[in-house]
Amino acid sequence: MDRVPILKIGDVLLVSIQGDLDDQSVLTLQEDLAERVVATGAVGVIIDITAVEIVDSFVGRMLSTIAGMSRMLDAETIVVGMRPAVAITLVELGLSLGGLRTALDLEKGIALLGRTASAPLDDLSAVGQ
Amino acid sequence: MDRVPILKIGDVLLVSIQGDLDDQSVLTLQEDLAERVVATGAVGVIIDITAVEIVDSFVGRMLSTIAGMSRMLDAETIVVGMRPAVAITLVELGLSLGGLRTALDLEKGIALLGRTASAPLDDLSAVGQ
Repeated sequence: MDRVPILKIGDVLLVSIQGDLDDQSVLTLQEDLAERVVATGAVGVIIDITAVEIVDSFVGRMLSTIAGMSRMLDAETIVVGMRPAVAITLVELGLSLGGLRTALDLEKGIALLGRTASAPLDDLSAVGQ
Repeated sequence: MDRVPILKIGDVLLVSIQGDLDDQSVLTLQEDLAERVVATGAVGVIIDITAVEIVDSFVGRMLSTIAGMSRMLDAETIVVGMRPAVAITLVELGLSLGGLRTALDLEKGIALLGRTASAPLDDLSAVGQ
């Protein structure tokens, strides 16, 4: 699998997870993301999992690691686009994704970052309307 | 391959192409995209090809079809994130991607839509700053 691209919108980095990631792809994504957060001074990282049909403990750990890493770098992580079936499975499996915030879709995720972040995101919050 | 997710930011739909698409995935993406353009009244479609390392005539035709289709539905298509090597190959192959507009990255693509579109994108253009 190729590298997962990291897009930038204002002060937010956007990662759209598509298909299954292997161990190396996950490591590469985490490193790339950490570098981009530092390089861009992003205040938020939004991870879109619309295309993800199965979230197991491997994916859950990846999300938690990204969230923890971003927090160290002063950026908040929000997971958006979770399918209903994924939410049900996560609860049934007892995977709570602790420390991760979620939003229904990309716009709501951006709006959520706009509410919690300071001034730089004022412009961006208009996008979520 | 799973469906390619279509994200929405304001009046813009965003598609990030990752990995190779087979014929069926391309057809599904085109149908999904047409439906979403109509359902959301989007003024623009941004296709991110950061992760695409090879653009052949198949991918080129897909991009042109999406652009033509979106134009019929009153939405402009912009391709962003093209790698330098891809641009070189396209020119060498004589694939001009006629009718497609490009921008360097997502933010510049959004800014480009903001300049050409009418009022609804005024809010959104702030994101590209």
